[in-house]
Amino acid sequence: MNKKKEAAGDAALKTISEPALKRLPLYHQYLKKVHSTGMQDISCTRIAEELNLTPILVRKDIAYTSIQGKPKTGYSVEALITAIEDFLGWKNTNEALLVGAGNLGNALLGYRQFNEYGLSIIAAFDSDKAKVGTTVHGKKVFDIDRFENITQRLKIKIGIITVSADSAQEVSDMMVRSGITAILNFTPVKISVPDGVTVQQVNLASSIAILIRSIE
Amino acid sequence: MNKKKEAAGDAALKTISEPALKRLPLYHQYLKKVHSTGMQDISCTRIAEELNLTPILVRKDIAYTSIQGKPKTGYSVEALITAIEDFLGWKNTNEALLVGAGNLGNALLGYRQFNEYGLSIIAAFDSDKAKVGTTVHGKKVFDIDRFENITQRLKIKIGIITVSADSAQEVSDMMVRSGITAILNFTPVKISVPDGVTVQQVNLASSIAILIRSIE
Repeated sequence: MNKKKEAAGDAALKTISEPALKRLPLYHQYLKKVHSTGMQDISCTRIAEELNLTPILVRKDIAYTSIQGKPKTGYSVEALITAIEDFLGWKNTNEALLVGAGNLGNALLGYRQFNEYGLSIIAAFDSDKAKVGTTVHGKKVFDIDRFENITQRLKIKIGIITVSADSAQEVSDMMVRSGITAILNFTPVKISVPDGVTVQQVNLASSIAILIRSIE
Repeated sequence: MNKKKEAAGDAALKTISEPALKRLPLYHQYLKKVHSTGMQDISCTRIAEELNLTPILVRKDIAYTSIQGKPKTGYSVEALITAIEDFLGWKNTNEALLVGAGNLGNALLGYRQFNEYGLSIIAAFDSDKAKVGTTVHGKKVFDIDRFENITQRLKIKIGIITVSADSAQEVSDMMVRSGITAILNFTPVKISVPDGVTVQQVNLASSIAILIRSIE
């Protein structure tokens, strides 16, 4: 379903690989650090050394942001920070809706770091009537029945799933039906989505399983 | 450094692949769901169908837990749940220490789901004197200077890093020096650890970068 959209999405993503996209926030945090020490300019070689990468890879990744380096000195640290933020869309605020105002959901509603990554959770949804109407870290909790309507009205594209595992697929289906095309899934369930919908899973259960296994 | 330990660790991990280890929590949550509906027995084929996997893969994964299937009916749902929990060490409590009692750290201190995954955060550490001595979700915040001593005294092997990106490597080094061999890293920094130390990274910045890029 929605093959046309998928094709368009694929083409857009092809301009930068997922690993490269994942490295840009890493460069950004390093650049912020060197910027705070007063450094004006920086070379790819220097960034590469610090982050255990190759200069060629760093140069290629940075080229995606369309910034121009200066001969000999490399890049202006400040300009490079801005270029990465622009490229990653951190300057814009990308609004998201969260479903599941439980323990983890509430924690994420108060996680201010999301704003630095260009993401703003504007409201939460839950099926538990006791939670509906409450405010968590300044964000209102709405009845899940209103999700589709609010998502479409505000044209929100990003959904965050923090419900229990057994509701994950159902919530994902509802999100997709409502027009959500990017999902951050905090449940251990591998959710199925149609073409054109991007899912990123944060699987704490799996990460912990690997750590515990390693110490036994 | 510590080559001997690495070799032992590698051998232990070889008994089950990382992808297989990541799938076991998924089976577990599905089995809990079917168990709650009253189902007594289940086949690999049924699990595979539900989770979009192949029956052969599911059978191989489950074999790691050493459970015996029954001809025709498959596995007892209840016995399989217990076998997976035993294998993953969820029945034991694996104690962990958290460094960085900020916004995210505090949220994780209150994240009760960790207990279901066999992990118990018993204390937090911070360098901010204003936080030291406070209690967050029932867990005490200690001065970071006491980390090494407490870790060694209690023989803790798991550390959770929720400091800001620019302190991540420093905290990781301190953890390793203190005897931590399994690290859950919530910063965007790719930390360097010696052989024999297992790291799992939860990189929210990267996941969000990919989602935002996909909607543009």
